[in-house]
Amino acid sequence: MFSISLQQRSLTDAQRETLHQMWLRCMRRIILSTTLAGSGHPGGSMSSLHLVLMLYCTLEHRPDDPCWPERDRVVVSMGHISPCVYSVLAEFGYTPEDNFILEFRQAGSSYAGHVECCVPGVEWNTGNLGQGLSVGAGMALGLKLRGSRASTFVLMGDGEQQKGQIAEARRFAVKYELNDLCCVIDRNHLQIGGDTDSVMPQEIEAEYAASQWNTIRVGDGHNFDEIFQALRQVRSSEVDDPRYPSVIIAETVMGKGVSFMENKAKYHGSTLKDDEAAAALKELGLDNPLPALRGRRKTLRVFHAPFCPALDHSKIEPGQPKTYAMDVTTDCRSAYGAALEDLARLNNAGEHPRILGFSCDLEGSVKMDAFHRQNPGCFFEGGIQEHNTATLAGAASKEGFVVFFSTFGVFGVSEVYNQQRLNDINHTHLKLVCTHLGLDVGEDGQTHQCIDYIGLVQNLYGFSIFMPADPNQTDRIVRHVASHPGNHFVGMGRSKMGIISDESGKPFFGGDYRFVPGKADWLRRGGHGAILSCGPVVHNALRAREELAARHGIEMSVLNLASIKPLDADAVLEAAGTGFVITAEDHHIDTGLGARVSTVLAEAGAACRMIRLGVRSYGLSGHPEVLYRLEGLDAEGIVKTVLQARSDGRIRG
Amino acid sequence: MFSISLQQRSLTDAQRETLHQMWLRCMRRIILSTTLAGSGHPGGSMSSLHLVLMLYCTLEHRPDDPCWPERDRVVVSMGHISPCVYSVLAEFGYTPEDNFILEFRQAGSSYAGHVECCVPGVEWNTGNLGQGLSVGAGMALGLKLRGSRASTFVLMGDGEQQKGQIAEARRFAVKYELNDLCCVIDRNHLQIGGDTDSVMPQEIEAEYAASQWNTIRVGDGHNFDEIFQALRQVRSSEVDDPRYPSVIIAETVMGKGVSFMENKAKYHGSTLKDDEAAAALKELGLDNPLPALRGRRKTLRVFHAPFCPALDHSKIEPGQPKTYAMDVTTDCRSAYGAALEDLARLNNAGEHPRILGFSCDLEGSVKMDAFHRQNPGCFFEGGIQEHNTATLAGAASKEGFVVFFSTFGVFGVSEVYNQQRLNDINHTHLKLVCTHLGLDVGEDGQTHQCIDYIGLVQNLYGFSIFMPADPNQTDRIVRHVASHPGNHFVGMGRSKMGIISDESGKPFFGGDYRFVPGKADWLRRGGHGAILSCGPVVHNALRAREELAARHGIEMSVLNLASIKPLDADAVLEAAGTGFVITAEDHHIDTGLGARVSTVLAEAGAACRMIRLGVRSYGLSGHPEVLYRLEGLDAEGIVKTVLQARSDGRIRG
Repeated sequence: MFSISLQQRSLTDAQRETLHQMWLRCMRRIILSTTLAGSGHPGGSMSSLHLVLMLYCTLEHRPDDPCWPERDRVVVSMGHISPCVYSVLAEFGYTPEDNFILEFRQAGSSYAGHVECCVPGVEWNTGNLGQGLSVGAGMALGLKLRGSRASTFVLMGDGEQQKGQIAEARRFAVKYELNDLCCVIDRNHLQIGGDTDSVMPQEIEAEYAASQWNTIRVGDGHNFDEIFQALRQVRSSEVDDPRYPSVIIAETVMGKGVSFMENKAKYHGSTLKDDEAAAALKELGLDNPLPALRGRRKTLRVFHAPFCPALDHSKIEPGQPKTYAMDVTTDCRSAYGAALEDLARLNNAGEHPRILGFSCDLEGSVKMDAFHRQNPGCFFEGGIQEHNTATLAGAASKEGFVVFFSTFGVFGVSEVYNQQRLNDINHTHLKLVCTHLGLDVGEDGQTHQCIDYIGLVQNLYGFSIFMPADPNQTDRIVRHVASHPGNHFVGMGRSKMGIISDESGKPFFGGDYRFVPGKADWLRRGGHGAILSCGPVVHNALRAREELAARHGIEMSVLNLASIKPLDADAVLEAAGTGFVITAEDHHIDTGLGARVSTVLAEAGAACRMIRLGVRSYGLSGHPEVLYRLEGLDAEGIVKTVLQARSDGRIRG
Repeated sequence: MFSISLQQRSLTDAQRETLHQMWLRCMRRIILSTTLAGSGHPGGSMSSLHLVLMLYCTLEHRPDDPCWPERDRVVVSMGHISPCVYSVLAEFGYTPEDNFILEFRQAGSSYAGHVECCVPGVEWNTGNLGQGLSVGAGMALGLKLRGSRASTFVLMGDGEQQKGQIAEARRFAVKYELNDLCCVIDRNHLQIGGDTDSVMPQEIEAEYAASQWNTIRVGDGHNFDEIFQALRQVRSSEVDDPRYPSVIIAETVMGKGVSFMENKAKYHGSTLKDDEAAAALKELGLDNPLPALRGRRKTLRVFHAPFCPALDHSKIEPGQPKTYAMDVTTDCRSAYGAALEDLARLNNAGEHPRILGFSCDLEGSVKMDAFHRQNPGCFFEGGIQEHNTATLAGAASKEGFVVFFSTFGVFGVSEVYNQQRLNDINHTHLKLVCTHLGLDVGEDGQTHQCIDYIGLVQNLYGFSIFMPADPNQTDRIVRHVASHPGNHFVGMGRSKMGIISDESGKPFFGGDYRFVPGKADWLRRGGHGAILSCGPVVHNALRAREELAARHGIEMSVLNLASIKPLDADAVLEAAGTGFVITAEDHHIDTGLGARVSTVLAEAGAACRMIRLGVRSYGLSGHPEVLYRLEGLDAEGIVKTVLQARSDGRIRG
């Protein structure tokens, strides 16, 4: 494998010649792949090519062992330059050239339009701009915690610098002195809409400097010598403040190397026609195998097998569940905090920690303070910067940590939905524990009442959604998600509550109870109908059940659906067997538990009457009990709904 | 009303004394209201009080006519300092002092925990940090377009400066030279988590300077003279570059004025107990009416009537619908662009425009270019800054404009869901037209395939959701949303398509067809079952219907649900009357049309078999037709599903 040591003072002529030949082969791949696919981003790929090539030449990496733990990381934030990235990866032997050129942008192939990890050497699936620096910061943080000396490089576009999340990531990287993080900006002055200065004027270097980053300019981003010197400067820490990360801003030309493509915004997202590609290849002195390749692409049916990077989940000792006795009144948040502290005690005592915690200026409210005290080096305060923190927490989880990220639901889900979506696409191991959900947040009002988290998170295929009904179930769910791979959302309200009992008066979620995703809990059984609920409203459902039985002779089942996704369809259908189902929840009435139950009932064609109770408009600012009453979600409201259903003849017998 | 002219060189002693008395009365209100409510944010309220008071003294405003069009705007970005804001508004006669003090944070009252527009004088409901500067920029832009000389002030916290959206808003304000915009930062160095420098170090002044803002420091933000001079400097344009906006950074003290509260982070969100409040009032030399007020608050049942600011929607001439003939093949995007151009021609020719357009570096892709050419001064390129643009577009719509914001679905919804949520809470008139939805975006892959927009937007109570089935329906829907108040989402894919015909072969959505929200279109009728669909998949449903009828003797209805929210429940139940319903859509299978139809069926207890077809995992990068085939959403897949249902005995007759 070709490699250039940063110990050298400068490049040799032989190295320059080799680099030029590599560049030519990569240019050929970029032109062929995009023209064959008929779509893709050739201009930006050519703009970045010298930078990416030089970077890989100086990288610590092993193409035959792409997941080697000590490798330097390269995050390509502007994922649309995939033709450049795949070309360079092919050049270094990560992936076969032919497969990439022939398969690019075909369904079933690894070579997607935006870079994806199923091509070896790609560290992170990107595509939506502005998230890459947070990803790199997360990886750099993870490497630092593991004591690794590997560096992290983030390649970004210049138009992309407009995204606000990047400003957040810059600050985090400075706060935690991530000096092994280096950002390389391809400054070609063009974005889809034209000149970056006319689309959105921005002083990129001044912004990085204001954030205390070390800034290094490369006057010609197509001159290998200049790029080499800049990388050398960063790696040898010859920068203003070696504690802080560095940015290399390289002046480049969109479409560099093909005269008629240079500096044309059009080639951001337009490919060359066959005759234009022929002219481009000719100008570069290259052969033109397009006609033959076109025939091969047409008949291609079996794709190169995708690469599956290991998705190791740190082995976590879940510890012994804690049981809160019937006389306890506390909030689920505190039970979460206590469980997390216990998990830290059990798992973070070794040489390197296994569990990390992130919050955004709400450490105390989300009860991460005990964990923080227990493991000061494992807790990260992200500031009021949820976008960066969400992405960064996800990326850190891919470096071998189980990562808990806690904040209010509005900030951890509603504000950063797309960041969580990209985490999910990247198969992270994020434990997103959100507190202060629903009307239960009360007086803080509509902007703070997260009643849409089920509606939002259920769009993320890889996320499970759990909402404990009391502190005991919280403890078990937290231990479960800590010790199981993948992305989990755990939700809870703000208020204190009692402990849910079984019919004998003992804690229902104590003793032998074990949390199993996709399994609902029959808190009570009754033949006249079933109340399906989750979270704090379960307590109201139980009170309603008591009153209906005692005063009206109506025996309702109460089914707790703490596992909202996956949902226990069998239990829902069993509930429907009573002929009458009510869902009661502290969520948007059309997107929460009731909607999920509806899909089960509709698909089964269940002969059952159903009533949904939930939140019907943006909430008021007031005490949670009053807000529940106004929405008919208190015990009295549920009783009233059942009695009305009986008088309407909806209840059997 | 007390007012101080900025023509004065300095304050007079009499003014200083009046200001001090005003301050004392406001301090009293802050202490009483928060202590009575038992929750709220007294510390930050006291920190900002001198700033807010001085601002209102120098404002052009009319408390007895709070919506006076030429008033200066004040946006309070950190909405939690509501006690300060309500206190000052009471001081200036906007609202009765007693009502505020007694009702604060009670359900049903106007005086919510975070400021809301139902209190006269409040311009924008806030609460989630970081959006206020975008709001202010949107208002300043709207005022400028209307030729108003009014200024816009945005009050922000210092912790809040960490939010990335603020960096985006700064750039937009400079690009469009919004020099009547002034930001005032309460720099008290404390946020919930403690010292801002330890939570997230940030050089606030350097960041504003790097964005080319004029920066003015106030060394003591509790000294009325210093604040006055800073405001005077801004208003008289005695700044470095008068083309650009200015920021006043005022050094303040959390809890200022009560010795034991000063500089304590705790008082961000903790209120004083009765004895502490008594001590605070005593220290200030004020009376203590708490015991009497507590009694009155307890028995309070009827709240002060909320103020309802006029929500005028500009009168828009919708023009004549355009009918695309049966031989046309085009994309809905182009039909949108043509309709928008026509609307601009009809409505923007007067002295002031009525329709504005915003995009984020995708003007050409979303077909806003014709509108841009037609009305160069009405189109705003927001850069790759979707968060700022979404909020700003919403705020501009409250200044008397109908605002179209167009980008890809992933960027207009998934990335900025919470910004749209706050727009909705603020009753904006946003026409969010998103293109490139679904698998139909094809090769750009999973990060770009917006299959969750129904799942997301349906959480927003005020938004309708429309998805036209062809260019003719697009034209009518666009004209409808332009001429009707409120927030509308209109979605479309990327690909070209044919024109949908009626059974006689004429354009179904031509002639007399008029789009009515909540009314579905029976494209075809058949007794064996019904295919419910929307958007591009409708074309596949129609093809499947033809094949089933011609080759298998199965007569299926095809129901187009272009109005997804509100949904035509009657039509859905009529479809269910056939006994067999399939939903087919280019959306997440669990959160799209199928889920919405399920709630209708479940609630009605409809005796009907239902099958949902939709997207079951993050999509691949490939041609849309291939992706549809893989998900069984092409005509062949729908036929196969119906035939399977018949062989399972699910189809009657």
